[in-house]
Amino acid sequence: MALKGILGFEHGIVQAPLGPDISGPELVAAVANAGGIGLLRCPDWECPDYVREMIRKTKTLTDKPFGMGVVLAFPHELNVKTILEEKVAVLQLYWGECSKELVDDAHSAGVKVVPQVGSVEEARKAVDVGVDAIIVQGHEAGGHVSGKDGLFSLLPRVVDLVGECDIPVIAAGGIVDARGYVAALSLGAQGVCLGTRFVATHESYAHPIYKRKLIEYEKTEYTDIFGRARWPGAPHRVLETPFFDDWRSLPSHENEVDQPVIGRSTIHGVEKEIRRFAGTVPNMTTTGDLESMAMYAGQSVGLIKEILPAGEVVKSLVEEAQLLILKKFNNVA
Amino acid sequence: MALKGILGFEHGIVQAPLGPDISGPELVAAVANAGGIGLLRCPDWECPDYVREMIRKTKTLTDKPFGMGVVLAFPHELNVKTILEEKVAVLQLYWGECSKELVDDAHSAGVKVVPQVGSVEEARKAVDVGVDAIIVQGHEAGGHVSGKDGLFSLLPRVVDLVGECDIPVIAAGGIVDARGYVAALSLGAQGVCLGTRFVATHESYAHPIYKRKLIEYEKTEYTDIFGRARWPGAPHRVLETPFFDDWRSLPSHENEVDQPVIGRSTIHGVEKEIRRFAGTVPNMTTTGDLESMAMYAGQSVGLIKEILPAGEVVKSLVEEAQLLILKKFNNVA
Repeated sequence: MALKGILGFEHGIVQAPLGPDISGPELVAAVANAGGIGLLRCPDWECPDYVREMIRKTKTLTDKPFGMGVVLAFPHELNVKTILEEKVAVLQLYWGECSKELVDDAHSAGVKVVPQVGSVEEARKAVDVGVDAIIVQGHEAGGHVSGKDGLFSLLPRVVDLVGECDIPVIAAGGIVDARGYVAALSLGAQGVCLGTRFVATHESYAHPIYKRKLIEYEKTEYTDIFGRARWPGAPHRVLETPFFDDWRSLPSHENEVDQPVIGRSTIHGVEKEIRRFAGTVPNMTTTGDLESMAMYAGQSVGLIKEILPAGEVVKSLVEEAQLLILKKFNNVA
Repeated sequence: MALKGILGFEHGIVQAPLGPDISGPELVAAVANAGGIGLLRCPDWECPDYVREMIRKTKTLTDKPFGMGVVLAFPHELNVKTILEEKVAVLQLYWGECSKELVDDAHSAGVKVVPQVGSVEEARKAVDVGVDAIIVQGHEAGGHVSGKDGLFSLLPRVVDLVGECDIPVIAAGGIVDARGYVAALSLGAQGVCLGTRFVATHESYAHPIYKRKLIEYEKTEYTDIFGRARWPGAPHRVLETPFFDDWRSLPSHENEVDQPVIGRSTIHGVEKEIRRFAGTVPNMTTTGDLESMAMYAGQSVGLIKEILPAGEVVKSLVEEAQLLILKKFNNVA
């Protein structure tokens, strides 16, 4: 049976931790209630009380297990300590080395550790420190993308590396529908992780204008023009909006620091000014010139045609994958 | 039945036309004899007599149908006329617009037209002029690559575009084994096109040192440093050999014209000097500093572990795809 769950969850469908606060309690609970793996996104600064509050709020919305994603490039020690105290089901990690000590601490707390990697080398390091699953992110993915290889190339190599270890490999990047899900299973994945598809849901905390652009636009670009000062050396994939097209050749010495303020947001409870070229996508609270803000999206955004309830995304993936398999592969023997 | 053939061939497995002369009569006949679609590579200059000779030589090695690939960026009118006169089964086209007139001429000669595209826009134009199938090339592919999107993103969008047209869509880029074949079928392809995997065969006309490097190296890069003067604006994917690593930042104003001669090859019957940074891979006749020559390869080269007979590549793809489908998807219902 190909469509079994992983890590104790009903389905092997992971909702990516969407920054800075797009995958909040409502989205995560909706995914969890549908049997998927919902991941809150931890703030990029130390705020353990707020982290605890996010987790507890999510627990009021679902009885199912869920997790939280942490970007290791930012301060996170106190936040991780709180995440482990609150015993979420999964600690997802990205953009930094996942240490043996961290894995051991998480396991002592009964929390599973799932790093996202962009290369075979990173996957090897993750296996060596005893992680519970690996998310393999292809270059197709939206948001911050560390690797250069597409899923067709990277995924089977990581699957071969993991071999008989009994560590599920989860495919991320460019997957939005059942075709991508079944393709990932064919390449050896046991689960799939979707980002852009879950931004475009009723429950995501993205601003309606950002959601609408995910439906309207078909093209993306891999760039480093957003958020250079705050997170240097972190290329990302964004929608080719008119703003991006106008500024795609931003000289390398320029960044968001000296740019004009173009809007305001409350992000994880903190009021912030948004400068032009900040790496911050518009959330539900954002005001100002939203059209000129970063709009992260994966290469498959052209396949997303409507804003759906998040639970329906999970349900459709499972049901349509079963139909696709029956239709395409039932008579091969 | 998913693993049916396309375009009248036994299997939907296409051997890419490998330049400049790597997919010669021996390789193409071996693929054809195994039931795949073998494609000769037409020279990049007008030489109709030589083209006729190549086709006729191939016909002495196989009774099965085969085709020829033409790069439209180079002079080709007389060559195409000859290809149609010789009535090969398939005319494959790349890197240029496939006109309605050309499609009509080919159809009048009983020749099927199969362009390779790198974007949805190109696919739309191809459908509009009445082609017989479309090869969709993902960014993962080796050699010259026109598009930026990976197969997970580009392939289903082209499949959706083609819709009910009854035009097979063939996936190219990063596919080397049955996992990639089944993944491509899952995303809606009816066939797959493999390049690097067929360079690494007994029958390919690649130099043994080039074949050996395909086994030894795992990493590739998308670049434009090779063959800039001869074919400007044509980025390509190559192995990350030590030569490439040393020179990856070649200034944009430099090209092969003023570089030293580093070797010699006979290419399609013509003796040529190979200058440093030429776009020419070493073939069986090449002498000189082969280590410093261009070595095209796709992102999945790390999955290629041995040089195989080309017929065995075709046979294994079919047999292992059937096994994979039975093992993974037999109990989904």
